Amino acid sequence: MLTIASDFGSPYPAAMKGAILRRTDAQLVDVAHDLPRQDVRAAAFWLREVVPEFPPAVHLAVVDPGVGTERAVLAVTAGDHVLVGPDNGLLLPAARRIAQGDVQVYAVDYEDPASSTFHGRDVFAPLAAEIHEEGTGLLHSDDRFSVTSEFETVDFPAPEWHDQAVHGAVLVIDDFGNAITNVPGDALDDWFGREIRVNGERAPVRRTYAMVDPGHRLVTVGSHENVELAVNQGRGDDAFRVAVGDPVVLDRS
Amino acid sequence: MLTIASDFGSPYPAAMKGAILRRTDAQLVDVAHDLPRQDVRAAAFWLREVVPEFPPAVHLAVVDPGVGTERAVLAVTAGDHVLVGPDNGLLLPAARRIAQGDVQVYAVDYEDPASSTFHGRDVFAPLAAEIHEEGTGLLHSDDRFSVTSEFETVDFPAPEWHDQAVHGAVLVIDDFGNAITNVPGDALDDWFGREIRVNGERAPVRRTYAMVDPGHRLVTVGSHENVELAVNQGRGDDAFRVAVGDPVVLDRS
Amino acid sequence: MLTIASDFGSPYPAAMKGAILRRTDAQLVDVAHDLPRQDVRAAAFWLREVVPEFPPAVHLAVVDPGVGTERAVLAVTAGDHVLVGPDNGLLLPAARRIAQGDVQVYAVDYEDPASSTFHGRDVFAPLAAEIHEEGTGLLHSDDRFSVTSEFETVDFPAPEWHDQAVHGAVLVIDDFGNAITNVPGDALDDWFGREIRVNGERAPVRRTYAMVDPGHRLVTVGSHENVELAVNQGRGDDAFRVAVGDPVVLDRS
Repeated sequence: MLTIASDFGSPYPAAMKGAILRRTDAQLVDVAHDLPRQDVRAAAFWLREVVPEFPPAVHLAVVDPGVGTERAVLAVTAGDHVLVGPDNGLLLPAARRIAQGDVQVYAVDYEDPASSTFHGRDVFAPLAAEIHEEGTGLLHSDDRFSVTSEFETVDFPAPEWHDQAVHGAVLVIDDFGNAITNVPGDALDDWFGREIRVNGERAPVRRTYAMVDPGHRLVTVGSHENVELAVNQGRGDDAFRVAVGDPVVLDRS
Repeated sequence: MLTIASDFGSPYPAAMKGAILRRTDAQLVDVAHDLPRQDVRAAAFWLREVVPEFPPAVHLAVVDPGVGTERAVLAVTAGDHVLVGPDNGLLLPAARRIAQGDVQVYAVDYEDPASSTFHGRDVFAPLAAEIHEEGTGLLHSDDRFSVTSEFETVDFPAPEWHDQAVHGAVLVIDDFGNAITNVPGDALDDWFGREIRVNGERAPVRRTYAMVDPGHRLVTVGSHENVELAVNQGRGDDAFRVAVGDPVVLDRS
Repeated sequence: MLTIASDFGSPYPAAMKGAILRRTDAQLVDVAHDLPRQDVRAAAFWLREVVPEFPPAVHLAVVDPGVGTERAVLAVTAGDHVLVGPDNGLLLPAARRIAQGDVQVYAVDYEDPASSTFHGRDVFAPLAAEIHEEGTGLLHSDDRFSVTSEFETVDFPAPEWHDQAVHGAVLVIDDFGNAITNVPGDALDDWFGREIRVNGERAPVRRTYAMVDPGHRLVTVGSHENVELAVNQGRGDDAFRVAVGDPVVLDRS
């Protein structure tokens, strides 16, 4: 199995699929091709949420604002999974969620292709296909691959606690308009059924959307186990007037 | 074969795919993940149009504004097909179109997952995968499944006839901007090549779009066999100034 | 393998997939379903860029503003590939890129289906499935298929050279906002690292996006080997104020 994720929109991902299927008859699964464009941190968040759901596979992920520059190319093993992509931090959060203590990062020697603008097709897709075809033994036996401890990472900022208030931020907005924060869901333990102040305004804390009327705001814990600001059948980002990176203060006093 | 449909946008469907592929090596086919958001009736219309085109399969469909509430979970057999989804009316129109007289509805006992907001991943995907893996015998042999005659349905309103006029409504707008009504196509029998009045304004009745000039309006019968308001290479909803739910009076006088 | 491309958006492509999978157990691969809507020339450009990346397959492509009219239906062999779609020029650029000297065009007799508006489902999908199932021998042995030299084509306009300036045009805008011109990339040979005048304004010529600062303009050669107008982590079409069809004068004086 070979999964593919990118911020390429359409139709460029098809060129990657073709380049893969010329080299291996893997079962291809599209993860998403509208990852937050050239936003490595937000894309890394989403990969961390969805890639670990898959059975062992080669996971190709390309959000690569540095395409064609000196940035390295990585293959990362995480248990029986392998992630392939650019060295900009994109792959590590997913790899660590899959196999906390069993992550190995390999830098990959590659030849510059003719085009400097589409390594997804010309570098990453062939590499992922080759690893799928040959198996992870390739990483140990082929001298293009070398274990490295020098690679880029992305951080998800930790929230800060001040007495009864937790000071966090919006990490990403999902397609529904839910504003997903960096505050772990257990900040709401014992708070369900009550109200909390969000950036100064009261909102009900509920276990799911339909526990408030359609169009009404709520604070809940999403499937990612973080606090999210939502509206039942509406957009939380609009109702709470927040965008990615904005501060979110949850005050339980 | 296992088809997947939802209103989840991206990238949440990938989490469902992973949850399925961890449990079964089914051939996965994406139906759509941009079904009209949290609009069960419109989503049920689209599922009725496309799901019956498939060979026998397990069809997972999740448009679920009631996620995490007491709403039931259903498995519906329709001939050799099985549909899996929430009990809100979403599945029945497709099931009945597949096998009018051979539809059986099962309520499914399930355990509440840790997250109350993503039953697509945590309840429906595992259930669809299990039915795909075990076959429909599971529905008869496992006491989590019980035949029920109590389930939600959705109605598509019937048009009304007044002399020479039929009073209908817009059911859905498709991606092209075609306004698809609830008026059966045979209302236009013998009317092709002529003009009809739509909400008071004359428009030509034609068998297909290119029978009028680009940018011009027409009334036609779509592949769903309903009357639709269209523009050749343009948007019918804009040209006829209609939205979902709006009345459409076709006057043949 | 059977690839599918269209301008159908969603969910109509699922009806095509179902119609195919009822007839053959081909591995289906989505190329794109948001090809430039009813813009045969731009869609043909994208098919030429991505379809040749695939291994031999049946490629179904439907951008068909003339659906339901007298326009013919084609099956085009290109080496070991077969392309299936409407006779409007859509298929030929891809076929010729796959196998310059080995392209054969067949006109296909077909029965008019009940609906005149969805030949994708009712004509093209069954035809592609049948060719996939029976193999290309079908094209020689079945009298529904006849070799033809009369078929529609699309042209990509050639740029014109005037002394130090090349006068081209924008062919398509991609999802990133890159404005892809008809000027071959070798027009920039020896020009990398320098500046060129684009429609009168100076812009740097670079091999890839990140060679200028984020938000800054550049002229580069894309993976399609044509000159493109771009912005690092931004939209070239906005920054250069160009749309599809607009003139682009690259002046090296």
